[in-house]
Amino acid sequence: MSEALTLDSLTSFCLRKGFFYPSGRIYGGVRGFYDYGPLGAELRKEIIDDWWYFFVRRREDMVGIHGSIITHPKTWEASGHVESFYDYLVTCSKCGKDYRADHLLEDLGINVVSLSAESLSALIKEKGVKCPECGGELSEPAPFNLMFVTYLGPKRTRASETYLRPETAQLIFINFRDIYYTYGMKLPFGIAQIGKVFRNEISPRSFLFRLREFEQMEVEYFVNPNKMDECPYFDEVASLRVNILTAEQQEGGTNEHVVLTLEEAWKRGLIKSQWHAYWIGESIAWFKRIGLNVGRLRVREHVKSELAHYALQTFDIEYYFPFMGWKEIEGISNRGDYDLRRHQEFSGKSMEIEDDRSKFIPHVIEPSFGLERIILALLSDAYRVIEGRPVLSLHARVAPIKVAVLPLVSKPEFIKKARSIYVELKKHFTAIYSEKGTIGRRYVEVDEIGVPLAVTVDGETLENNTVTIRFRDTRAQARVPVDGLVEEINRLLKNWDSLAESVRAK
Amino acid sequence: MSEALTLDSLTSFCLRKGFFYPSGRIYGGVRGFYDYGPLGAELRKEIIDDWWYFFVRRREDMVGIHGSIITHPKTWEASGHVESFYDYLVTCSKCGKDYRADHLLEDLGINVVSLSAESLSALIKEKGVKCPECGGELSEPAPFNLMFVTYLGPKRTRASETYLRPETAQLIFINFRDIYYTYGMKLPFGIAQIGKVFRNEISPRSFLFRLREFEQMEVEYFVNPNKMDECPYFDEVASLRVNILTAEQQEGGTNEHVVLTLEEAWKRGLIKSQWHAYWIGESIAWFKRIGLNVGRLRVREHVKSELAHYALQTFDIEYYFPFMGWKEIEGISNRGDYDLRRHQEFSGKSMEIEDDRSKFIPHVIEPSFGLERIILALLSDAYRVIEGRPVLSLHARVAPIKVAVLPLVSKPEFIKKARSIYVELKKHFTAIYSEKGTIGRRYVEVDEIGVPLAVTVDGETLENNTVTIRFRDTRAQARVPVDGLVEEINRLLKNWDSLAESVRAK
Repeated sequence: MSEALTLDSLTSFCLRKGFFYPSGRIYGGVRGFYDYGPLGAELRKEIIDDWWYFFVRRREDMVGIHGSIITHPKTWEASGHVESFYDYLVTCSKCGKDYRADHLLEDLGINVVSLSAESLSALIKEKGVKCPECGGELSEPAPFNLMFVTYLGPKRTRASETYLRPETAQLIFINFRDIYYTYGMKLPFGIAQIGKVFRNEISPRSFLFRLREFEQMEVEYFVNPNKMDECPYFDEVASLRVNILTAEQQEGGTNEHVVLTLEEAWKRGLIKSQWHAYWIGESIAWFKRIGLNVGRLRVREHVKSELAHYALQTFDIEYYFPFMGWKEIEGISNRGDYDLRRHQEFSGKSMEIEDDRSKFIPHVIEPSFGLERIILALLSDAYRVIEGRPVLSLHARVAPIKVAVLPLVSKPEFIKKARSIYVELKKHFTAIYSEKGTIGRRYVEVDEIGVPLAVTVDGETLENNTVTIRFRDTRAQARVPVDGLVEEINRLLKNWDSLAESVRAK
Repeated sequence: MSEALTLDSLTSFCLRKGFFYPSGRIYGGVRGFYDYGPLGAELRKEIIDDWWYFFVRRREDMVGIHGSIITHPKTWEASGHVESFYDYLVTCSKCGKDYRADHLLEDLGINVVSLSAESLSALIKEKGVKCPECGGELSEPAPFNLMFVTYLGPKRTRASETYLRPETAQLIFINFRDIYYTYGMKLPFGIAQIGKVFRNEISPRSFLFRLREFEQMEVEYFVNPNKMDECPYFDEVASLRVNILTAEQQEGGTNEHVVLTLEEAWKRGLIKSQWHAYWIGESIAWFKRIGLNVGRLRVREHVKSELAHYALQTFDIEYYFPFMGWKEIEGISNRGDYDLRRHQEFSGKSMEIEDDRSKFIPHVIEPSFGLERIILALLSDAYRVIEGRPVLSLHARVAPIKVAVLPLVSKPEFIKKARSIYVELKKHFTAIYSEKGTIGRRYVEVDEIGVPLAVTVDGETLENNTVTIRFRDTRAQARVPVDGLVEEINRLLKNWDSLAESVRAK
């Protein structure tokens, strides 16, 4: 049934259940901005907390930072964003509306990956593209920088101009030296960060997919350039089979991925460094951990024309959305020494460090995750209609609410007992309590918002102090004592992946 | 010794240990912006996670959201920020530098709380204040709106102008209706949020105290205006004794607080509603929970001239900083129905809801915490010099790193064992490993960054598989088996408040 999921139905589901609201909705909203509602806020927190655990806290080669959204504007000159971070804009000569040139062409089914102004202009003329609103003539494509501008202090002048960061990465690069020396880091090591970024998209679209304000979860992993093929953890991911689509395949006209292990992909030179292959593997391992169907992922290499100015090689991890096909949810770039070298040039501060008695600027592999896109993929993946009833089958690790407490019927003695259990569980888990309506109706309600476990207080509870635990995905029920309920729920949540078995064993 | 702590010494400690770096430091920095380094990022995460648990997850009357930084600009007209959120600016006629008029006077030791332009102008003339940089004449004070401006889309026009949010509160108010109806909330209930806010301060100062970009943790708690004195949880806080300084006392010329229970303060009408008193109590309970010395807190009422345009009554929770005296770290306002009423007017959408068969706009109590100010207070509080050695005595609940693993000497068998313990502990706790230098030197290092527990692998470890656990604050050591070490550390961290006793009992 998830095949029939449309972007519209998913969007309206999210609004109806309070995962997301268009920001400023009471004033008509503002395109490209969403507020996380209560369920969305908890889902977000579970995802970022698990990411931080997996990529930072459990690793000894990683530290985290939390940088400013506004920093010194020179950062964005050095990074190349002032010069190169733009889209092409066309303006209607009649109604004055602005459009992204490539989106107008895409909407006509024309494949436009990183075309030049000239090519876009030629295509617009060739296809006779007009203003979609009023049919007016369109201007020549003009570059438009995607950074939001603001001003430090009271004067709006060129000198006081600065930017909202368009990526978190640069906050890591500009702090690299300080962190390296403060903590006496040894290569290879990584610095991670989660935070908001801003891109002044001309045409935000596709619900959470193309936002003007969104969140990135990024790692910049620093490696001795002579040791790009010496990853000590590679064994952990080497045998992972991935769907891979190389630049060469695409340039040869095919869009069919092949299935290879990461070791094969690296040994054949498709992924040019072992560290790059490792981070692709770790990323997929994390997607699996949070319950994403990794069979719906592919690893697509950027073709030459779309490769960013800083990148030696880039792979996107793409998810197959039922309503819009393969779309990037993470990019993993080999940025070489581009960023640190540029900051060295612009700041006059050496970014060279010593390792193995040689001095160099380290190279960087960057796994860069788009939080809202991952949420969109998770929700697309989890939203099912089973026997006519919607079930949000989120992994317990990220489910916004872990457990529901429900009295079978709304009699005072059932309610009293259920509420006392709820109060206790709420100290340990995100929990909800509900007593209105039939128990069947309430199961439907908690299934629909992805609550993995439901504790029901029934007649037997009052006799022998046991409750049933109902499993969202199987609808199986197990009877357990109220004493030790917290531990039992903990055990079930922690062992979610093997839960099907544990239910059967009961 | 913490009496001798200066802002400079605390700032340089934080920089040296990598809690914070001035943002864009390699480019000379940008005033009012700091990046959290690795220890700062973990400290921040521990604080916000605990706040979210205490104020949201454990409560059944609270939900959380996560709103956009940029939203519909009409929001800020309705809130009053476009009209009323400004400071007074004076500009030097000679060198062109801008100053905050009240800060220039404050620097001369003149007490200026929310003076009008006329009064500021008169005082500047009377005292003969000149430009502190060049001695030039200063302009008349002019209002300067503190919101950062940016533009949606490619054109920088009035029509495309919008703002970076100066507070998180309004994102709650503009989503109030949707949340209320989506979740069928029942009064009283609260909506909470943590997130970045931006204020274009003319003179950011005092390290983390007055930043241009900082984080708020806010609750908007909605109450039936006829039930402002019917808080069902009041018993939990009624007997809490607080240092209170009322507007009346201040207007009568005293700055000496009195000690009252919250019940007394409410019953005497000093705190005008019971719900307001309750949230003051909950706030102090949380400060205690994260280890802040609550004896250094006072509850100061805003005098009439400083009361914000939206507030019926406001109390600041102030912390006594050794280097700058009493300063606000949290504000708790009774905002009445101001915000919802204004949004109703500006949006044309009713904000009335039904409760007890009457319809009304609910009233709001708002506890608003400044994250960086709380961090500054925690660090000021925790930073001690004991027998000539610096110890950062942070509560285990918020300490950025919970446990250090140290081989007594750097022999291979000690290192091997210590590393295997470290790898295991790192799955469960933020942990560090260190083998260089004498054990005494390493204890000093981990004490200085606030690690509450240190596990040492010594000769006996190799014989009987036990290690010592050393307690940062007492330097006491206990010997425990390696089997069950995770559980033991968990137990110690969870029972930190009674740890002095548990150490003695061993």
